[in-house]
Amino acid sequence: MGDTKVKTAETSPIRDLVARRRAGRSLEGPFYTDREFFALDIAAVFARQWIFVAVDAEVPEPGDHTTVDIGPYSVIVVRDDEENLRAFHNVCRHRGSRILTEGRGASGNLVCGYHKWTYGTDGALRYAPSQPADFDRGCFGLKTVHVRSVGGLVFVCLADEPPADFAEVAARIEPYLLPHRLRGAKVAARTDLVEDGNWKLVMENNRECYHCDGHPELLRTFFPTYGYTEENVPTALRPAHERYLRADAEMRGTYERLGLPYALIEELDSRATGFRIQRDALDLAGESFTTDGRAACHRRLGDLPTPRLGHLALHLQPNSWFHVVGDHAITFSVLPLAPDRTLLRTTWLVHPDATEDEDYDLATLVKIWTATNEQDARLVARAQQGISSPVYEPGPYAPTEYQVEAFCNWYITRLREALRR
Amino acid sequence: MGDTKVKTAETSPIRDLVARRRAGRSLEGPFYTDREFFALDIAAVFARQWIFVAVDAEVPEPGDHTTVDIGPYSVIVVRDDEENLRAFHNVCRHRGSRILTEGRGASGNLVCGYHKWTYGTDGALRYAPSQPADFDRGCFGLKTVHVRSVGGLVFVCLADEPPADFAEVAARIEPYLLPHRLRGAKVAARTDLVEDGNWKLVMENNRECYHCDGHPELLRTFFPTYGYTEENVPTALRPAHERYLRADAEMRGTYERLGLPYALIEELDSRATGFRIQRDALDLAGESFTTDGRAACHRRLGDLPTPRLGHLALHLQPNSWFHVVGDHAITFSVLPLAPDRTLLRTTWLVHPDATEDEDYDLATLVKIWTATNEQDARLVARAQQGISSPVYEPGPYAPTEYQVEAFCNWYITRLREALRR
Amino acid sequence: MGDTKVKTAETSPIRDLVARRRAGRSLEGPFYTDREFFALDIAAVFARQWIFVAVDAEVPEPGDHTTVDIGPYSVIVVRDDEENLRAFHNVCRHRGSRILTEGRGASGNLVCGYHKWTYGTDGALRYAPSQPADFDRGCFGLKTVHVRSVGGLVFVCLADEPPADFAEVAARIEPYLLPHRLRGAKVAARTDLVEDGNWKLVMENNRECYHCDGHPELLRTFFPTYGYTEENVPTALRPAHERYLRADAEMRGTYERLGLPYALIEELDSRATGFRIQRDALDLAGESFTTDGRAACHRRLGDLPTPRLGHLALHLQPNSWFHVVGDHAITFSVLPLAPDRTLLRTTWLVHPDATEDEDYDLATLVKIWTATNEQDARLVARAQQGISSPVYEPGPYAPTEYQVEAFCNWYITRLREALRR
Repeated sequence: MGDTKVKTAETSPIRDLVARRRAGRSLEGPFYTDREFFALDIAAVFARQWIFVAVDAEVPEPGDHTTVDIGPYSVIVVRDDEENLRAFHNVCRHRGSRILTEGRGASGNLVCGYHKWTYGTDGALRYAPSQPADFDRGCFGLKTVHVRSVGGLVFVCLADEPPADFAEVAARIEPYLLPHRLRGAKVAARTDLVEDGNWKLVMENNRECYHCDGHPELLRTFFPTYGYTEENVPTALRPAHERYLRADAEMRGTYERLGLPYALIEELDSRATGFRIQRDALDLAGESFTTDGRAACHRRLGDLPTPRLGHLALHLQPNSWFHVVGDHAITFSVLPLAPDRTLLRTTWLVHPDATEDEDYDLATLVKIWTATNEQDARLVARAQQGISSPVYEPGPYAPTEYQVEAFCNWYITRLREALRR
Repeated sequence: MGDTKVKTAETSPIRDLVARRRAGRSLEGPFYTDREFFALDIAAVFARQWIFVAVDAEVPEPGDHTTVDIGPYSVIVVRDDEENLRAFHNVCRHRGSRILTEGRGASGNLVCGYHKWTYGTDGALRYAPSQPADFDRGCFGLKTVHVRSVGGLVFVCLADEPPADFAEVAARIEPYLLPHRLRGAKVAARTDLVEDGNWKLVMENNRECYHCDGHPELLRTFFPTYGYTEENVPTALRPAHERYLRADAEMRGTYERLGLPYALIEELDSRATGFRIQRDALDLAGESFTTDGRAACHRRLGDLPTPRLGHLALHLQPNSWFHVVGDHAITFSVLPLAPDRTLLRTTWLVHPDATEDEDYDLATLVKIWTATNEQDARLVARAQQGISSPVYEPGPYAPTEYQVEAFCNWYITRLREALRR
Repeated sequence: MGDTKVKTAETSPIRDLVARRRAGRSLEGPFYTDREFFALDIAAVFARQWIFVAVDAEVPEPGDHTTVDIGPYSVIVVRDDEENLRAFHNVCRHRGSRILTEGRGASGNLVCGYHKWTYGTDGALRYAPSQPADFDRGCFGLKTVHVRSVGGLVFVCLADEPPADFAEVAARIEPYLLPHRLRGAKVAARTDLVEDGNWKLVMENNRECYHCDGHPELLRTFFPTYGYTEENVPTALRPAHERYLRADAEMRGTYERLGLPYALIEELDSRATGFRIQRDALDLAGESFTTDGRAACHRRLGDLPTPRLGHLALHLQPNSWFHVVGDHAITFSVLPLAPDRTLLRTTWLVHPDATEDEDYDLATLVKIWTATNEQDARLVARAQQGISSPVYEPGPYAPTEYQVEAFCNWYITRLREALRR
C-alpha cells in the first residue's frame, strides 16, 4: 500500500519536497496542507509578486478606497487627491489597529476608527489627537504598498522590490484590454466565495477544461476544447472542435477588421510575471457567457461596433484570471486564507452608462459564472480532501493539463528562489 | 497545588509519557489533548489495526459501495462483480481527488467526480480520458486496503501487514454471530454523532457501567451490574444483581437448548486484536433494548425460535462494540476526527424482510441507544474538558473499571510497539 | 516597507521579544498572536497572580457555588458549611472529569456528574462508590486554590505561593469598598461577551479614554477627560474639563462630609498586585451610569444618604476593573480563551432588597455598559486584526495613554520574572 513513502513526504522538510518535485506530475500533499508551506507561499509568492486585488472602477473618484486582505496583510487601495492610485498597509502607526474595517468607502482622509489618527490619501499622517509638542507626524505616515493599474485592473506588490518584468508584461497585455475601456466601467456585481481548499488547487482547477463536464451552464458557450490541440482533442469533443474551428476563423476576421489584438501569448512559467492572453471564439451566438450566447447587457464595453466578439481570456500568475466579452468583463482574484481555505473574489463590469433592469438583468449577467464558481468550489474541496490522505501520491498530468503543470513549474521556481535567499 | 508535576507532563516527549504510564490509573492528559499523540494514535493504532467500519448489509449487491474516513484516510468499501468485498483508498491516482464524496451508492464502476477517471470494482483503472498513447493504465490502479467480513461485520486494515491474530479471533467470534445472520440483514437506521472528546475517552466510557446511573432509558433492560463481580457488586445494585442471577440461569438454559454459544471470552489486552464476547441476560421482558424489554420488531434476526434471548455483547479493540438482541443488532464504530473530536457511527440492523411501520416502529427501535449515545457524548465532553486542566493527574480505577484499564493496557502496548519500530 | 524587521520579530524567540521591549511604545505583534506567548501569559500571569473571578453575592449561602475557567484551568468557588469561601480545581480525582459543568448552583456536596464521586464543601472526598476496601479517600481530596474576598469581590490564585503584597493592597482598597456593602448585595444581571482579541488588548482598551468618542452612551455621564491632565487636556475636551472641575470640587465636599475615602492611589506598575483606585465625579446628575445621570435603582448600595456620589473606580492587574455608583456596582472580569479570543464577564450588583421592575428597570440598569462593552469589543477586534499584519510595528503612546503603558510595564515585568525562574 506504500504509505511508507508518503510518511516520508509528510515529515520531509520543505527544502526536500521542493527539491524533489517531479515534473509532469501533481505536487505532493504537504504543499497543500502544511502550515509551513502556507507561510512560505505567503512570503515567497503573495508578499513578493504582483497580486490582482481590485479594479479601477471600484475607486473612480478621489477619496474612494477599498481594502483587501492578502494572507495576514491588509491593504488599502485609494484614489488620491490627484486621481492617482495609491496603496497602503491598513495598519495604524499608533497602536496597530486596522484603519478601515469596511470593504469600500469614500472619504477625504483615511481616519483610523480607534483613536482618530487621520491620514491623507497620500498616506501622510495629518492629525493625531493629544500628542505631546515634540511629536513628529512625519515619522508616522502609512507604510506604502506598490500599486499599478493595467488597463483598469489593479495590482499591488507587498515586496520592497517588485518583480522587474511587470512593466513589460503590462505593455504587452494593455493593447488587448484597452479597447474595452475597463477603467471607466461600472461594477455591476461582486461576490466573495470561500472555497475549502488550498489556493493552488483553486488556480490549478482554473487552468484546465479536462473537468468541464462538470460545468453544464458554462459549456453552453465555452468551447470545452480549452487546453486541447488538434492532435489530442478527444473524439467526444470532435464536433465541438469543428464548431470551434469555424467560429475561430470568423472571429479572426472580425478581430482583424476591428484592429483588436488576438494572438495567443503564453509565457506561463518562463518569467516572474507568468501570464497567458488570447482572444478566442465562444459557442452559440458567440457574444457572451449566457445560456444562448447572446449579450446580457444592451450596452457594449468600449462601445465596440459588434456584440459578437468571443472572449478575451487573460491569466496571470499567481492569483488571477479574466474574461472580457462584448457586453461585460469578469475578474477573478484568488486570495489565500489558510492552508485549506481560499477566497475567490469575482467582479462583473459593464458599460458605465448601463442601468440595471433597463440595460441588463443582474441575475442573467452573473448566472453562468456564479454557477461555475460554485461547481469549481465543490471540485476544489474534493481535491483538498483527497490529497490530505497520507497515501496520496502525485499522478501524471494529461497533455490537456499543460497549463496546470506550467502553474506548478512557475510556483516551484518561486519557492526555489525564496529558499535560495 | 502540584501543578509543577503536571507542567512536566505537558512538556514531556511522547516516549517519556508512554514509558512512565502507571498501571491501575487513568492516562495522563496529553494522551487525550496533544496533536502529536493524535498523530501517533492514527499511525500506531488506526493505520495498523483492523478497524470496524461498516456492515455487509450496507453493500449487499455488486457495485454497492460506502466510504469511511479513518483520521486523514478515506476508504471505499465496495462489493465487486464477484460479490466479494473489496476496499480501496478513496484517492484518485490522477491528481489525488476524492473519488466518491457521498457516503453510500451503487454503480458499475468507481468514477472519480473530478476528471472521470474510471475504476472497476476490482480497483483497476479502466478508463482515463485524454491520455497520451504511452499512458499505462496498469500503473494507476487504486491502492488497496485489506478488508474482511466477520459474521456480517466489515473490518478494514490500512497496514501492509495486518495483525496476524485476526483470523483466529474471527474464528472464535463468528459462531456467536452467525445464528443472527447479520450479513443478509437490512439496515434500518444509521446515525453519526460527533462527540467533543478524544476517541479513547469514547472507548473508555463504553467499557464500564460505573456511570450507568446516567442512562435511565438503557437501565430499563441493561443490568447495571456490568463490570461488577459477585464480590464487589455494590449494595445499591444488589437487587438488580439478584434479578440478573435469576435471568442469567434461565438464559443459559435457552442458549444450551438452541445451541447458541454464550460463554464469556475476554482477551482485551493479551493480544493484538483484543476482544471480549459474551451472551448475557437482559432485564424486564429480556428481549430487546426497549422501555419494557419487549422486541421492537416483529421479525427476528436469523428467525430464531424465541424472542427472549438477552443480548450478545461484543467488544473489539480499538474502535467498536456490538449488541445483538433477538429482533435487531446495533453496531458502534468509533472514528477519530481530531484530538478532541470523535465520530460515533451507530447502525441498526433488522430482519431483511422486516418492513418499517408494519414490523417495527423506527422511533421505538432507535430510542434507547440514541438517548444513551447522547448521554455518553455529554459525559465524554466533560471528561475531555476536565483532563485538559494542567492540574489533572491520573486517578485510580475501581475494580468495576477493569475493562477500561484493559483498554489502556492494550493501547499503551500498541504505542510501545510503534515507538520501538 | 520594512517587513524584514517584522519577519525577525515573528521568528524571534520569546526571550528576545521580552528583552527588547521598547518603553513608550505598544508591544510587538507576537505578544498578541503567538500561541507560545499565550501559554506564557497563562503560566506567568493567570496561574500566578490574584485573578478576579466572582462576587461574594453569587455564593451567599453554604453550598452555593460557581465555576470559572481561567485559560485551561477550571475552578469551583464555593461557600463552605462554615460560610467561608473555598476554591478548588474543578477536576475529579478519579479520571479527571469536570465535576460541575453548569455555571452556578447550590448543593450540600460537590458531586461529580460522571461517577458520583462526592466531595464536601471543604474539598474532602466523602464518598466514592465501588472502591476496594483499601481505598484511601484521604488521598483524593480536591486540589485547593487560594481564594480571598475583598469588600465583596472574590479573587483566586492558582499559584502555590501567591504574590505577597495582596494583603496590603486589600487593606488599602477595602475602606473605599466597604461603605457600599457589596458582599451582601444582589446580583441583578451578569453577561458574558466573547471578544475577538487578545486579553491584553481588552485590558489596554479599558486603560484609556483616548478612544471614548466611540462611546456616545457612556459619554453622557463619564467625563471623557479620563487619563488627561490639566496640562494636556485637548481643546475639544476643555468644556468637559471645566464641568469636571466644578463637579469634582462638589464631590470632594460630599466625600469629606460622608467620610468616604476618595484619594487617588495609583500603583499600576510598581508592585505585583498593581492597582489604581479613585472616587471621582460623574457628569449630568452625577449619580449613575444612565442617560441622564440619575440613579437607575431606587435603593442605594450601603444605604448611603445621597445618590449623587460620582463613581468609585478600581483597576486591578491583570484582569479586572470596577465601577461603584450610588445605586449599583459593575464588575468586569477578563478571562483569556485563546490568543485571539477573550471572555469579558460583567456583573451588575444592586441593594439586596431592590426588586426588579419595582426598584429598577433591568434594561435601564444595564444599558450604558452593555452598549459600551459591545463598542469596545469591536475596537478590540480591529486592533487584533491590525496587529496581526506582519508590517505592524509598535507605535508611540500619547500622554493620555500612560495607564496603557503602565499595564504593559507591569506585564513585561511579570514575563521577565517568569523567564528568570
